[in-house]
Amino acid sequence: MQPQYQSSKMTLVANAIEPVQIVRVRGGVRVEVDDRAAAEEPLAVRIGGRPFATIMRTPGADRELAAGFLLAERIISTADDLGVIEQCRDEEARGNTINVTLVDAARAERALSACRDVTSSSSCGVCGRQSIDSLLSDITPIASRLAMTAVTVAALPDRLRASQRAFDETGGLHAAGLFTASGELVDIAEDIGRHNAVDKVIGRRLLLDQLPLTECVLCVSGRTSFEIVQKAAVAGIPILAAVSAPSTLAIALAATAGITLVGFVRGDSMNIYSHAQRIT
Amino acid sequence: MQPQYQSSKMTLVANAIEPVQIVRVRGGVRVEVDDRAAAEEPLAVRIGGRPFATIMRTPGADRELAAGFLLAERIISTADDLGVIEQCRDEEARGNTINVTLVDAARAERALSACRDVTSSSSCGVCGRQSIDSLLSDITPIASRLAMTAVTVAALPDRLRASQRAFDETGGLHAAGLFTASGELVDIAEDIGRHNAVDKVIGRRLLLDQLPLTECVLCVSGRTSFEIVQKAAVAGIPILAAVSAPSTLAIALAATAGITLVGFVRGDSMNIYSHAQRIT
Repeated sequence: MQPQYQSSKMTLVANAIEPVQIVRVRGGVRVEVDDRAAAEEPLAVRIGGRPFATIMRTPGADRELAAGFLLAERIISTADDLGVIEQCRDEEARGNTINVTLVDAARAERALSACRDVTSSSSCGVCGRQSIDSLLSDITPIASRLAMTAVTVAALPDRLRASQRAFDETGGLHAAGLFTASGELVDIAEDIGRHNAVDKVIGRRLLLDQLPLTECVLCVSGRTSFEIVQKAAVAGIPILAAVSAPSTLAIALAATAGITLVGFVRGDSMNIYSHAQRIT
Repeated sequence: MQPQYQSSKMTLVANAIEPVQIVRVRGGVRVEVDDRAAAEEPLAVRIGGRPFATIMRTPGADRELAAGFLLAERIISTADDLGVIEQCRDEEARGNTINVTLVDAARAERALSACRDVTSSSSCGVCGRQSIDSLLSDITPIASRLAMTAVTVAALPDRLRASQRAFDETGGLHAAGLFTASGELVDIAEDIGRHNAVDKVIGRRLLLDQLPLTECVLCVSGRTSFEIVQKAAVAGIPILAAVSAPSTLAIALAATAGITLVGFVRGDSMNIYSHAQRIT
């Protein structure tokens, strides 16, 4: 049973930014001013009504986030595994609880027994797993022949930022963008957690039943650590570009998973850490 | 039983950076060069020999990291709760497993039963908790009368970066520094995960039995999310300064916990989000 799912682009939500009152100090002058901050709230993810995980995230695209999170956690592998994803409307939930039904009851039972209710921070991508190995099982190296020019890669961060600019008035939101190999933006998501932004863009494609994303390029703001590459690998994304540095484990996993990992994409320069043949 | 613990400053370890081979693209020119990347490896934390958590971290100061992590997770509250913290030397562990003995066996049992073996990413600070509430229980608002000038606060990021410079050749390491109110660096730790760097500096003070840190100021590179403030609160740190933006939940927790939260510390300007009276 495939979930009813229509919209193909992320709707940026109003409550991702909240007003705050601050004291601003500038060159010795101190004034009380109104400012805005990136929202961070816990999202409780339930499977079949039972607690599965808590994700610290910026509100918005919660269904996509839950879908992408469950994919990365290897609880589901296609949209067909999902029954219903719904916001819990009761007062206590306050928009911060989402319930997921899996088609396969035994799978849900396994997920719940392997992974007790755990909390994942706003910058965490591999919480709740009993081991790193469980995240890496069944990863098939990506064989995609996708290729793109270095000039196109170099343009991605600015395009990501341009799409983000109107939205991010807080300096506190990470972005993840899916692009075509010719550099067109397919979708973008923002979140206080980089890994959440990745889960949101991938989760939306999952809900649209478009996985694996063998023709897509993922661009993320900031650094690349293990879990970002792991999420790209599970989604079948062959090229991953980041504005900042990767970790050693991110590089090692990208090499194993057949992912072209690019870092420090700045101006017309970049570092390619693995499978450089896809950048022409 | 207080653990034998001598050194009062972090020893920066050689294996935090590893050599990598990359393809560097600069203005259309493509060369293969040797580069270095920030190390990321899983640290398995055992309590009494049984799996408790896996932390994705940069190797180095692992005992401090484990101590700080257990403090933030509310498993221990003073150095007296700790028996032994030791690196497991067996071949399989490869320097990536640490075993902690708690003095109180019942406490160890509770910790293990409440928190099954979970994995925390390199940028995660609240993994494995069954709920946010459990992290916030028993937080007493910090009443410290510590005060510092805005000029001193403004100098902290540069001092942090200066201490970090020799070490971070990768662009991939976060730093956390403990300072006095007059701006002297007490200790610094680096890690691919900001929350790990915080656990390392606080963990070292815990091992030295110097908690609560009511006379200390914590300065972190990057952003402030919920878990960074939570760690500061548990350690009794009254002032927290960051180079970048805080989240709404970070601000709310700082206000509740009696912490002066400062963000966007850049040049001679900064934003104060809570308890502004400590910045004079």
